[in-house]
This record gives sequence, structure tokens and C-alpha cells, in this order.
Amino acid sequence: MHNKGKIYVIGLGPGSREHMSKRALDAILDSEVVIGYKTYIHLIKDLLDEKEVIDSGMKKEVERCNLTIDKALEGKRVCIISSGDAGVYGMAGIMLEVKYERNADVEIEIIPGITAASAAASVLGAPMMHDFAVISLSDLLTDWKLIKKRIECAAKGDFIIALYNPKSKGRVYQIEEAREIIMKYKEKDTPVGIVRNAKRDGEEVIITDLENMLKYNIDMLTVVIIGNSKTYVKNGKMITPRGYQL
Amino acid sequence: MHNKGKIYVIGLGPGSREHMSKRALDAILDSEVVIGYKTYIHLIKDLLDEKEVIDSGMKKEVERCNLTIDKALEGKRVCIISSGDAGVYGMAGIMLEVKYERNADVEIEIIPGITAASAAASVLGAPMMHDFAVISLSDLLTDWKLIKKRIECAAKGDFIIALYNPKSKGRVYQIEEAREIIMKYKEKDTPVGIVRNAKRDGEEVIITDLENMLKYNIDMLTVVIIGNSKTYVKNGKMITPRGYQL
Repeated sequence: MHNKGKIYVIGLGPGSREHMSKRALDAILDSEVVIGYKTYIHLIKDLLDEKEVIDSGMKKEVERCNLTIDKALEGKRVCIISSGDAGVYGMAGIMLEVKYERNADVEIEIIPGITAASAAASVLGAPMMHDFAVISLSDLLTDWKLIKKRIECAAKGDFIIALYNPKSKGRVYQIEEAREIIMKYKEKDTPVGIVRNAKRDGEEVIITDLENMLKYNIDMLTVVIIGNSKTYVKNGKMITPRGYQL
Repeated sequence: MHNKGKIYVIGLGPGSREHMSKRALDAILDSEVVIGYKTYIHLIKDLLDEKEVIDSGMKKEVERCNLTIDKALEGKRVCIISSGDAGVYGMAGIMLEVKYERNADVEIEIIPGITAASAAASVLGAPMMHDFAVISLSDLLTDWKLIKKRIECAAKGDFIIALYNPKSKGRVYQIEEAREIIMKYKEKDTPVGIVRNAKRDGEEVIITDLENMLKYNIDMLTVVIIGNSKTYVKNGKMITPRGYQL
């Protein structure tokens, strides 16, 4: 049926089947080869019968993309998966970069997903109803000075701020510095939502404030959402008003 | 089977069935009453057999939420729909606000969707692989001075910037002023993606730059994505590198 290979770059969304798009599901089912970091492969293990599965460790992104191209050039339909939206700190960019670097003649379809901030917001209430900034605190590939500048600009602009990759085992001080910078511009009682495993097994939700946020468990599976100056907490939900008159 | 009403606040994603989550689809099917702005109702018209459908005009958000509460208090399962993610400039916030204002004892489930920036990014290539700011240019509910300040902060921080509601028939100068502010900080050849009807019927994609962006059609169905200082265009795709070494 198919003569030519094809690459699907798929964002699974939060990870549960319920919040995956039909297009993402169909693309996985259509694929002969599935490539991804092992945590993500595990999320879709019931879909993988009779498929070639290549799971890899973290920090192997370029290798994974090269392998994806190799398989597609063999004429196979290949999907490369990650969680959230493939277009937000995901595999979409590096996949295109590797394709162009190799001048490979393969079709790439990027399939968007629900990004972690959207998933986290939905369980917190409605914290992202107004302008927001998404910032990754990982300084693995980005100079920490630039990240700090962005945090400062976002706080100064009274943006709602969603922090991705806030803390890992080996990277602990960034969330502390980020909070210090933000506290120069936002009140200490500004609501903060801390969501771990949003919309998937093991979901944990904390609503606290800037002053107290560091008392809670924050790790790489966590998204932190800090409100703007209008954000409030009511009945255990975090709400940023859009500005409607009730 | 059901004795108590329930409210689903649903983000449909871009609008096509393919990019809706399973949870959103199941919630629509489960609902006895579907409420929404008529454009969104139209997107799911094939799912509405034997349901009570209440479509309303724009700018009736509070009325729509009150009606949703009324129906749920009658014991019905009701969904209130909008496009994109209900938690990003969507109906989630005002729905919770109206519920708490009325002290209504009804369950609300907020179902996230793929927000417009993610859909637009996926057709442009991979412009949002790094820190980004989402800003609505609608000054209907927000002071234009605050919006301008946010644009300035986002540009200064070298964020990728996604502009929602960039222009309407009656609101035309904001995109021009936004561009002027951004050009103080970003080079005039910074890539700009203009996507109309991303991932649904009538999709139109333009890749241009800050200098030339106003030459193209921009309206309320359009999302504008402006790159950061590293964003480039290659083979007709807009790419912001995450920083991997190829």
C-alpha cells in the first residue's frame, strides 16, 4: 500500500488515552515503527503489538531523530513520540533540523497535542485565562542568564507564568532563584499552582502562594503556574479573571 | 441513571474532529444539552442529534454560563463549548466565576484542548520550541496600555510571541502598534508565521518577517507567531532551535 516512508512527530498530550487527539492515536496505529524515550513508550504500550519499538534513554534526542530518518528512508511509517505538545520543547524542531541537515526526502507530519500547561491549568481551575508566558527552567541547553532575564521580563509584565522542568535531582537552585526574581514584581500572596502528573495516573495538585511554594515537592513531572496580579483562589480553585462583569 | 446535573467545559481544539481529545468527544456525546457560540456549535453539528442545542451570539459569555448552570441545576448533563483550550482565554474561568457567584451546587469538569498557538505552530514547522509568551490583542476587556506593556516585556525578553485575536473588523490598529513595539527589540527579518484556520477547513499559512507581516491578511481567525532571535526559516518551515548540537 505504502511505498514511501513517513514520519509522524506526535505529542501524546498529558499521557492518558483520554486526552490524546484522534489524529495522534491514528498515527500511532498506522506506524510500523515507534520511537521514543522509554517513559513515553510505556504510556502507549497497549498500542504497540506487532510494531517495531525503539525506546531510548534521555538526552539522546539527536540519535533518536537520526534513527527515525533511517527507518523512514527504508520506506517505513515511523512515529517519534513525546508527551505534551511536540511543538513545545518537544521533538518537532530537532526532527526538522535533522531532516534538513541530512537533506532527507521524507515527509514529516507534526501532530500537536495538549501541552502540560493546559493540562495543569484544567485541574487547578482556570489560572490561564489571560496573557501568559511559558518558561523552561532547564539550563541544559540554554544559558541561565537568559532564562533569568525572561523570568524577570515575564514578572514585570504581570504575565501568568508557567514553569516547565522546574527542578530535577541534579538541578535544584533554579526554582529558588526564579521565585526570588518573581517576588520583586509580584505580591507574596500571589496564587501558585503546583501540578504533578496532570491529567494522568498519579495526579497531585497543590494550590499555594509565592511565599510558600518551595515547601512543596517540585520535580521534573511538575508544572508550576504562578498567577498574575488579578489571580485569586476560591473554593479550592485558582482563577484568573478575564475581565467579564458578572 | 444520572440524578444530578453536571457541567463539562470543553475546548474543542482547532475544530476538526481529528484534533479533539477523546475526553472532549465523550463528554459531548454524554451531554443532553450543548451550549456555545454558534460558530463552535457548527463545528460539531453531526454530534448533536437528539440533544438540546443552545447557540448564542458573541459577547454573551456571562448569559451563556448562567444558562449552563440553570440547565445543570435541572439535573441535566450540559456541555459548554469553545474552540482551542477552554482554559486559555476560553470559558473555564467565567464558568467557575458564575458558579461561585451563584453558589451553585453543580460539578464542573474542565476538559483541556489543543490551544490555537500549538495548532498554528504545528503547521508552521517548529517555531515554539523555546520560551514563549501568549498575548491577546483584544482590548475589549483589557486596558490597551497593559497589553502594550506585556508586548514590550515579551519582546525585550526575546520570547517567541504568539498573538491571539490580532485584528477584527472594528479593531485594526493594535497589530500595527504591537509590531512597532516588537521592532524596537527584534530584528526586522525576524520570522513571522501567520496562520488562519490552523488544522481545520480553510487553513492558510504564511511565513514572512516582522518588516513585511502587515502586507498579509490578518483577522480574528488568525494566530500570529513571531520568532525569537534564533528562529530561522528553512525549506518553507519556521524553526526555533532548542539548542541541540546536530
